[in-house]
Amino acid sequence: MGMLTSLSGFPEWLPEDQLVAEAFLSLVKEKLTLYGFTPLRTRAIEPLSTLLSKGETSKEIYVLRRLQADGDEPDKELGLHFDLTVPFARYVIENHDKLAFPLRRYQTQEAWRGERPGLGRFREFLQADFDIIGEGDLPILADAEIVQVCADILAALPLPAVQLRVNNRKILEGVYQALEVQDPAEMLRTLDKVDKIGEQGVYDYLTKAAIVPASVVDICMQVARIKASSSADLYQQFNSLGLTNDLISTGLHELGYILDAVSRGNPGSLVADLSIARGLDYYTGTVFEARFTELPRYPSILGGGRYDRLASGERADKKMPGVGASLGMARILGVLLNEGFLKASRPTTTVVMIGLISNELYQNSIEIAQIFRKRNIPCEIYLAPDRYGKQIRYAARKGIPFIWFPSETGSTIGEVKDLRTGIQIPADANQWLPAEDLGVQIVKDETAWQAILNNPVFTRH
Amino acid sequence: MGMLTSLSGFPEWLPEDQLVAEAFLSLVKEKLTLYGFTPLRTRAIEPLSTLLSKGETSKEIYVLRRLQADGDEPDKELGLHFDLTVPFARYVIENHDKLAFPLRRYQTQEAWRGERPGLGRFREFLQADFDIIGEGDLPILADAEIVQVCADILAALPLPAVQLRVNNRKILEGVYQALEVQDPAEMLRTLDKVDKIGEQGVYDYLTKAAIVPASVVDICMQVARIKASSSADLYQQFNSLGLTNDLISTGLHELGYILDAVSRGNPGSLVADLSIARGLDYYTGTVFEARFTELPRYPSILGGGRYDRLASGERADKKMPGVGASLGMARILGVLLNEGFLKASRPTTTVVMIGLISNELYQNSIEIAQIFRKRNIPCEIYLAPDRYGKQIRYAARKGIPFIWFPSETGSTIGEVKDLRTGIQIPADANQWLPAEDLGVQIVKDETAWQAILNNPVFTRH
Repeated sequence: MGMLTSLSGFPEWLPEDQLVAEAFLSLVKEKLTLYGFTPLRTRAIEPLSTLLSKGETSKEIYVLRRLQADGDEPDKELGLHFDLTVPFARYVIENHDKLAFPLRRYQTQEAWRGERPGLGRFREFLQADFDIIGEGDLPILADAEIVQVCADILAALPLPAVQLRVNNRKILEGVYQALEVQDPAEMLRTLDKVDKIGEQGVYDYLTKAAIVPASVVDICMQVARIKASSSADLYQQFNSLGLTNDLISTGLHELGYILDAVSRGNPGSLVADLSIARGLDYYTGTVFEARFTELPRYPSILGGGRYDRLASGERADKKMPGVGASLGMARILGVLLNEGFLKASRPTTTVVMIGLISNELYQNSIEIAQIFRKRNIPCEIYLAPDRYGKQIRYAARKGIPFIWFPSETGSTIGEVKDLRTGIQIPADANQWLPAEDLGVQIVKDETAWQAILNNPVFTRH
Repeated sequence: MGMLTSLSGFPEWLPEDQLVAEAFLSLVKEKLTLYGFTPLRTRAIEPLSTLLSKGETSKEIYVLRRLQADGDEPDKELGLHFDLTVPFARYVIENHDKLAFPLRRYQTQEAWRGERPGLGRFREFLQADFDIIGEGDLPILADAEIVQVCADILAALPLPAVQLRVNNRKILEGVYQALEVQDPAEMLRTLDKVDKIGEQGVYDYLTKAAIVPASVVDICMQVARIKASSSADLYQQFNSLGLTNDLISTGLHELGYILDAVSRGNPGSLVADLSIARGLDYYTGTVFEARFTELPRYPSILGGGRYDRLASGERADKKMPGVGASLGMARILGVLLNEGFLKASRPTTTVVMIGLISNELYQNSIEIAQIFRKRNIPCEIYLAPDRYGKQIRYAARKGIPFIWFPSETGSTIGEVKDLRTGIQIPADANQWLPAEDLGVQIVKDETAWQAILNNPVFTRH
């Protein structure tokens, strides 16, 4: 168990951990499929001009050159994508006429950033992105579907307690407008740091730098403290502040709509939290994120929101609003798998190892194996005619639950031993079914979670 | 339908095609799981020294630099992997003490080469690699398991006719030894070109360059013409040549063993073909490849073999022989999906679209959707309260088979319309089950295959 990183920032896993990672990803894909998202894959490599088109020059992009390139060849400069949003926007614009909108797609791929690795931050990292992109108009029901699938995914995954929090940028922008804040973007960025520098830190920064009057900061802080689990609750808390304008009304309506839509089927799965801002500039309405409830300092494991301008950059004639989310697979597995909270129920896909009697009787083992494979029972053949004691030790070391001892006559009747109980019984390969052990399951180890909570690496400020 | 390549050599697919690609890959993984292979993933990026360690300097490697790197920083030079074999060998050596051998792993990832794109050749391409790596010794039964799983995968995939051909390098090396050929490697490379330049071409090249006497080339050609489907057949044909030595005997025994092991359960799935050499230097015994039977000029879609030295490069104390194969996913899909031989049974995962009566009654649609999702029926909600005519047109355009019209009262009884037949019936969301349409299937279009066969792009010499 454990993350292998012989190259800093590039995690790899042992086979038993990779089994967990794959099962984890399958759960995510299953849920997305139930919401009508179809899989997409974009190339890993983009022209540098695409990667820089959103002005994200601060990203540490990996640029490519061919080892054997002539210095002066006219190749476009290429780089590895640093997220899945920019390539998806490029894909949508490029293939616009071949796609049906609203488009629901998911994309599970690695992205790369040449940043200094840190807690939950890697240079190569797996993301699961899913978005609904509309054409012209995209109703708020799309936001509800996205937040709903996020809540469903988080509930289906084997995770410790997670909190999904949602807000709406229009509320914050409306508040700043009502309070006549001069630089709303700066205000948003600073308030977004409350998790990192605390309320007092935010207050001190904004007032000492004389960016905004203390009274205004006070009201913004009151807004940021609002937490609600239903639209009625939200309206009641907000109205006590006495702030109103059109942006606020729209934002409150949208946020309340989502709260009511999602909470109804999953009470407690979602909370409106008016401190959530999400740093990136392109969100225009709904914003949300999820964190491990007990690890508030660990970076968010899921984030997303509504954007109205992302995919329309190069086609001003087409308004293509979208709403989507990004699940940080690398970030989740980077702590849960590495610290042993998630484990595979066994370290191999093999349910049963077929013993080998002798080199001459290898066909007996192959025939049993082929019967099992036709019956969807994962198995492997032991490859050398060693003493059965040695064959059993190999299976035990590999964590294979059963061994099948084939008959010398080539009959399908053999003996099968459960290595966990030691019990050995005669069985017919055409009938025997280890139904409960067919697939590898993900097992949660709560004591490992307690160890994480006691580890200052994860909890210190 | 069709491959999207706005950047030459970097294929992308439309959603309906990506659905096929994913289903295709799932079939491959299912089969590999039945043979006890576990998934592995190695980072996409390796130190350049690892990439060049096998002397593969002719590969067009993409080298990386960080966009914002200082010119003189001491970062190791990094590059994108150009296959999955070199990183796997590195992984095995690095994590040797944490792994149990023989190790069965599969790996489905992209690789990158900065080569000029051509027929079935891309700059970014998906491979499915699977290997058994032993420690010290790896019996020939491992080769049989690998060839068997290849035969099973090829039979399970929706493909046109494919021929899997196997040989053993020891036979060829034994023949060259018996005939006292001076440069066996050159001989091997030249005979391997018989598909490209024809028998006469090979003959002319070898004799005119005076590399080998004509009589020797004649015998080598006779060897290369041998095709057999059982060990008995193989021995009989070979013995008529009158060539014997230890290498030949071992090679014939190994090849016969594999033929008999694999053909028994799958008659006709495999043929011994003594012209198969596989260009790469590292194979030491079994070699095999698969091609589309009717497209012999299209590059091989699967290849592999036995290697005795690959993973042991840096640890001379550990002999780690392996046998494995690489399935060229990009190469297969590059023709079959692009030319429309493979299609999705529908272009979306959604089985049923839930209509929206009005903005006020959005909860009715959400509740039906959540019932379906709990029952594992993929669905999406129509997002705007448009006239039903418009909602139906959207579903039809998207290829969604069913529409559910929810009740205004919020009851789970609604009406469901099959858009293919036009039939609309009342149904209860808790009971209705479109069992035959739940998953997206891969459909084969044989007329598209005929078009491929008639297209000189694929058949010309």
